[in-house]
Amino acid sequence: MRTLVDNGPRVLVMVGLPARGKTYLARKLVRYLNWRGVTAQVFNVGNYRRRDLGSAQPAAFFDPDNPVGFEARRGVAQAALDDLMQWVAHNPNGVAVYDATNVTRSRRAHLTRTLAEVDIEPIFVESICTDEAVVEANIRETKLSMPDYADARPDAATRDFRARIAHYQRSYEPLTTSEGPWIKLVDVGEQVHLNRIRGFLPSRIVFFLMNLHIVPRPIFLMRHGESAYNVQKRIGGDPDLTERGRDFADRASQYLQRRCSTPPSLWTSTLQRTIQTASAFPWTPTALRSLDEIDAGRCDGWTYDEVRTQMPEEFAARKLDKLRYRYPRGESYEDVMDRLEPLIVELERQRDPVVIVAHQAVLRCLVAYLTDRSPEDCPFLEIPLHTVIELVPKAYPGAEVRTELGP
Amino acid sequence: MRTLVDNGPRVLVMVGLPARGKTYLARKLVRYLNWRGVTAQVFNVGNYRRRDLGSAQPAAFFDPDNPVGFEARRGVAQAALDDLMQWVAHNPNGVAVYDATNVTRSRRAHLTRTLAEVDIEPIFVESICTDEAVVEANIRETKLSMPDYADARPDAATRDFRARIAHYQRSYEPLTTSEGPWIKLVDVGEQVHLNRIRGFLPSRIVFFLMNLHIVPRPIFLMRHGESAYNVQKRIGGDPDLTERGRDFADRASQYLQRRCSTPPSLWTSTLQRTIQTASAFPWTPTALRSLDEIDAGRCDGWTYDEVRTQMPEEFAARKLDKLRYRYPRGESYEDVMDRLEPLIVELERQRDPVVIVAHQAVLRCLVAYLTDRSPEDCPFLEIPLHTVIELVPKAYPGAEVRTELGP
Repeated sequence: MRTLVDNGPRVLVMVGLPARGKTYLARKLVRYLNWRGVTAQVFNVGNYRRRDLGSAQPAAFFDPDNPVGFEARRGVAQAALDDLMQWVAHNPNGVAVYDATNVTRSRRAHLTRTLAEVDIEPIFVESICTDEAVVEANIRETKLSMPDYADARPDAATRDFRARIAHYQRSYEPLTTSEGPWIKLVDVGEQVHLNRIRGFLPSRIVFFLMNLHIVPRPIFLMRHGESAYNVQKRIGGDPDLTERGRDFADRASQYLQRRCSTPPSLWTSTLQRTIQTASAFPWTPTALRSLDEIDAGRCDGWTYDEVRTQMPEEFAARKLDKLRYRYPRGESYEDVMDRLEPLIVELERQRDPVVIVAHQAVLRCLVAYLTDRSPEDCPFLEIPLHTVIELVPKAYPGAEVRTELGP
Repeated sequence: MRTLVDNGPRVLVMVGLPARGKTYLARKLVRYLNWRGVTAQVFNVGNYRRRDLGSAQPAAFFDPDNPVGFEARRGVAQAALDDLMQWVAHNPNGVAVYDATNVTRSRRAHLTRTLAEVDIEPIFVESICTDEAVVEANIRETKLSMPDYADARPDAATRDFRARIAHYQRSYEPLTTSEGPWIKLVDVGEQVHLNRIRGFLPSRIVFFLMNLHIVPRPIFLMRHGESAYNVQKRIGGDPDLTERGRDFADRASQYLQRRCSTPPSLWTSTLQRTIQTASAFPWTPTALRSLDEIDAGRCDGWTYDEVRTQMPEEFAARKLDKLRYRYPRGESYEDVMDRLEPLIVELERQRDPVVIVAHQAVLRCLVAYLTDRSPEDCPFLEIPLHTVIELVPKAYPGAEVRTELGP
């Protein structure tokens, strides 16, 4: 992903009724692209509406036959589009996502015409949901906590939001093959339909979208318990746990059993210190090579002091660019991100809770992805020993929760 | 691709009428997977039929109402399936492709049941062609050269093949959503429909298939003309061409203009020696970082003799495993293959001829992909200076043609 043939800015345009997970998909996609080194940004028309018109608009405001509401909505949609156009002009290799309902052909034709002026052919991403229960859950889980319903009671808010959807439903025209390149997601990945989608970056976007779902479930991340090398301050190797480390494994096991209502998928690296930690848990672990610690190559088993005194040039080079620095015959953080990509895809498609027992550098890369940090920040994230990090993936970002377990 | 989460053997089952490019898609996919380090193999029922029953079967043999033909065809289909089942038992992380028409529901249900016995859920890949001209071209370009029509005249052969297609057409039942995971390609990538496709490897297969087309066009590969470093036997750097090198550029220009009936896409690396070579050609080049020579890191600009005497340990390590050896702060051949993947996708979707002016290691990786060599052979392929390598991508593999131009 770090060198592309098909450069030039890309614009994705979301299409679909409210409560079809458009915003969720848009945010996940942008987070994935940022993590893969591609500059990307969402332009959410709802946020412009709330900013410019206030958030307390009743369903009638969204009636296409209400001329005042129609004009006002057109104004905020244009404001978001203007900002998007400015952004792509300054980000020649970026990906902008225009997040709005765009349910009519004429609205989409307007977007296509506007973007054609700067030589961009947008890719539409339509989200269709055939399961009413999923729509209902989506309304209850994400829409009721929107600023739009800050002062409303849940039942009244749901009723109002259903009326809002009905207004869009009346004018909804699904994408047709003549409307240029598009991706249709039916029931979030159950079926996917593609029209004229080609090229590396668009294909990668499809690749990622087809593996997403919108069932929220927690992810628990932790380093192995303290190892003999942690005590000696050595990097790499394949040491056993210390007594303190085994003690952490037992506490983590108790804690996770309280937190997981259904049995989680349990993933470790292939190194003894993670396998020994997970062996205290009552679930069967899967050992994955992609979770192994960053390969320190010729410095494996050394202390940082030894690296500094015996390979001062390497020590300095690493300090200068920790993200891209590669140990002699070893890996860089970027290398680790590359090999973690299959795991990220697998993580996204899991419907059960996931527990991952791994290592500092690998967890920095995973946490960077899950909490939307820049690749540059990734090598500096704090991932202490004996601490469980819990994440619930949501469209409206949930804070990570860190729990220290024992000394 | 080199470490996967979703391991276990995979079976892809082709579906579609004759002359829909199924064999082409199957072969390309297997070649791509092999190149990415995944063991993969095609089981082509047509080859079993020709081996066991002889190739000179008239169209009537393929009539579903001809009981003798039907039984004979069922026998060879089973022989191919038996071999496939043996193969997956011995290749736990492999991908097997079962290449036959499989146009009826009952045939596909039989395959699904058989594979369920070894806990494999097949993924169907259906190729649909709505353009009669494409089918016609496919018959003329690939079917008439089949052993089946070795002794027939083109018109008679085409008539016979059309009659064969008509027999399949009568019983054709396209895939429905209840038939498990599948990929439908309409007009080779114009539209793509996916049903329940998830996970890293299946997603990567989609990613590759959506960028293929079946319009044959030549690809010309060459190293830059001789550079000052070639004369000094130094690796890497960014030297200029020598006079001999400029002379090659002129000859190559003359040669390519004779060979290209339509203007080609012209790609170079970002290094002077390829840019200077392409500047002799009458087409506008695009300089791509992904075509830059393998990064020799700290050894950049050294001679091999200097590496041997000053870093004997590195020199020995490289000799031991040239595919995976990474220069200190530089790249391995595997790294080069990884960064070439977007270019391969771009190469596959081009409909014009393509001319690539690049470097020895990079071209080894490209030639390995295009001529189906194993990754292990890749670092040892011969890519001499001042030689144009021409490839025509076809389902039935065309030989590469090498032309030496000047001293």
